[in-house]
Amino acid sequence: MREEIVELARRTKEASRFVANLPSGVKEELLLRIADRMEKERGFLQEENKKDVEKAKEAGLPKAMIQRLELTDKVIDSMVKGTREIALQPDPVGEIEGMWKRPSGIVVGRMRIPIGVICMIYESRPNVTLDAAALCIKSGNAVILRGGSEAINSNRAIGKVITEILKEFDLPESVVSVVPVTDREAIKILLELEDYIDLVIPRGGEALIRFVVQNSRIPVLKHYKGVCHIFVDESADEDMALRICVNAKVQKPGVCNAVETILVHQKIAESFVPKLVAELEKHGVEVRGCEKVRAITPFVKEATEEDWYAEYLDLIVAMRVVKDMEEAIDHIERYGSNHTESIITRDYSNAQRFLREVDSSTVMVNASTRFSDGGEFGLGAEIGISTTKLHAYGPMGAKDLTITKFIVLGEGQIRT
Amino acid sequence: MREEIVELARRTKEASRFVANLPSGVKEELLLRIADRMEKERGFLQEENKKDVEKAKEAGLPKAMIQRLELTDKVIDSMVKGTREIALQPDPVGEIEGMWKRPSGIVVGRMRIPIGVICMIYESRPNVTLDAAALCIKSGNAVILRGGSEAINSNRAIGKVITEILKEFDLPESVVSVVPVTDREAIKILLELEDYIDLVIPRGGEALIRFVVQNSRIPVLKHYKGVCHIFVDESADEDMALRICVNAKVQKPGVCNAVETILVHQKIAESFVPKLVAELEKHGVEVRGCEKVRAITPFVKEATEEDWYAEYLDLIVAMRVVKDMEEAIDHIERYGSNHTESIITRDYSNAQRFLREVDSSTVMVNASTRFSDGGEFGLGAEIGISTTKLHAYGPMGAKDLTITKFIVLGEGQIRT
Repeated sequence: MREEIVELARRTKEASRFVANLPSGVKEELLLRIADRMEKERGFLQEENKKDVEKAKEAGLPKAMIQRLELTDKVIDSMVKGTREIALQPDPVGEIEGMWKRPSGIVVGRMRIPIGVICMIYESRPNVTLDAAALCIKSGNAVILRGGSEAINSNRAIGKVITEILKEFDLPESVVSVVPVTDREAIKILLELEDYIDLVIPRGGEALIRFVVQNSRIPVLKHYKGVCHIFVDESADEDMALRICVNAKVQKPGVCNAVETILVHQKIAESFVPKLVAELEKHGVEVRGCEKVRAITPFVKEATEEDWYAEYLDLIVAMRVVKDMEEAIDHIERYGSNHTESIITRDYSNAQRFLREVDSSTVMVNASTRFSDGGEFGLGAEIGISTTKLHAYGPMGAKDLTITKFIVLGEGQIRT
Repeated sequence: MREEIVELARRTKEASRFVANLPSGVKEELLLRIADRMEKERGFLQEENKKDVEKAKEAGLPKAMIQRLELTDKVIDSMVKGTREIALQPDPVGEIEGMWKRPSGIVVGRMRIPIGVICMIYESRPNVTLDAAALCIKSGNAVILRGGSEAINSNRAIGKVITEILKEFDLPESVVSVVPVTDREAIKILLELEDYIDLVIPRGGEALIRFVVQNSRIPVLKHYKGVCHIFVDESADEDMALRICVNAKVQKPGVCNAVETILVHQKIAESFVPKLVAELEKHGVEVRGCEKVRAITPFVKEATEEDWYAEYLDLIVAMRVVKDMEEAIDHIERYGSNHTESIITRDYSNAQRFLREVDSSTVMVNASTRFSDGGEFGLGAEIGISTTKLHAYGPMGAKDLTITKFIVLGEGQIRT
């Protein structure tokens, strides 16, 4: 198996030179044709996907996991739409944001270039296969895709369609390489190949991500989990706060940008907490409160220390009354995961301070944490979210898969 | 020792929150005062430096190393000038390059923020202590400085002056922490402290840098060596090519941006190689040539395979005749170190192609590789050069010690 994986990585590295130098127009055409073909091959994709879904049902996998696995019409529509959007985005490669002249007479600038070979390691959702391939092609990178065993037939089918089109464009198939083996050993081997792979992006459960980080010799961009907070400031518009808190918890509780802890300023706690608890419970949410919350709404379950660290991914929310913004920021600093936090406020300087001082990859004012997403931010599909404070912080789109090199235009200058 | 270092790192992390939120004006004042005080304390610095220099002489260290160690008036002048330049640069922290409105109504942008705690691991040159401290303060980061044992008195003296001024500004001293122990074990301990340190930047010999990369759990930005190339194209202005090749090799041969291999297009080799060899030899340079070079100038020493990989850091240069630009780029791809390469040409499309296709952190047209430097590029002092294709690629200034977070301005939007 080792030889097979090393050879796959070597060929991907070789292919990366081709995709790095593709003209913008060719990349656009290529991606549009991939989108069209996915639509046309919907029957084939769903047939292959059915094998995975049936195997998962037989194995008794949890319902939520089976849902993530399914290539429904809606999922395929959204994959196709995402690929078309990426196709039509401006090409980040070759972009020079500005050049400046130096006293020596040389003119200096930074030109955007691809990173090289990206290795995606992910679980369940087969749509990641197409999203990642499209973003990598757009940004001039080759990509190694190692999905989970539970989605192997779906991932291979998507890979097959992409490969056919690469051939039609006379491009090396290895621009997009689907790893045919899915055990953990294969991941370990990939993570050692620093000569062939430039960046690893894992997506999935915390256990998978920790495994990748611990075993990688290659830089990893990742987030472990999303413990997102909403801080309801004393000056908040209470109706707005109710609407946002409910939306952030209830609209899709199983995702990383759902809110997990709500912090309420003590000055409005007495009036606001009962309304908030009632509204959440009306939507089937279990509230776990601090002592002060329970003094106001005694029927609420008690929050333990672990609750402040918890990513429930479920209809459960922790709630705490805080003395002031200082205490809210300290709470986020201590228990947060650098993912997404939102303040609900009418106060200008509190909004500014929260934006400035909260050390998370996304900080919001008066908006639902559920907006924390590459698509919602206008990056096209996202390849992942980084809470590592290096290279990219927050949702990552095609541009985040590039880097700049310096270019220097001279007229014979020498250094004296 | 372990407890001492862990405690130092913990305190630096704590201090990083203070420096992250300093107003731009305060950082400017602070850096200007540090520059002034360094100038005033020149006697003290040179006295302490003398101890290191004498110890080095007694230990019989090589002359070049002793030279790098010395805090001459010229070195101090340049440290002070660099710090003043950094002080007066625009503050990268808080910068928002633009915001955009999304269909949902939210307004999205990216705000520049510090990385957190930077750990510098370096050898010999004590001026790195001040350069690094100034760049970190400017970019809102706290810094741990671990210089070599050979410069410990000089580094401590510079650290002491900085610490005094931090106290005068009522800032925690740990914003700039000089590690008091200098053995390798101390480095190993630092490299494990991923909870306190966000980024490691090593500077020095290849052995030190490989040691850091192999032992670090924290992301590392570095370059191992600088095997820089000049490609003299067939259309080159020969006088310009001679001037640039000599300058790139001779002006300061012991540094990473000096040229190590010169590639000459075969169409001009017959006429140009003899002139180039003669000019280089006039400046005391030993030339090592490929077969084709030696067919033209047979008195030249033979280049072996190792010569193409060599970073001589000395008055030696490798020379090869190549068939065309393709072969030149392939040579650079194979033997290069992603540092700096320059083409000498009069041909517009060759210049453009070289800029686009050569995969190095700095690519030049008609200029000496010796310009590859943060100062020459206008970044102020540089904290290092990265040939890792992540986060920063090429010389790194204050802005490269920051990252962006997403900020979102809403008016009550929820996701549907």
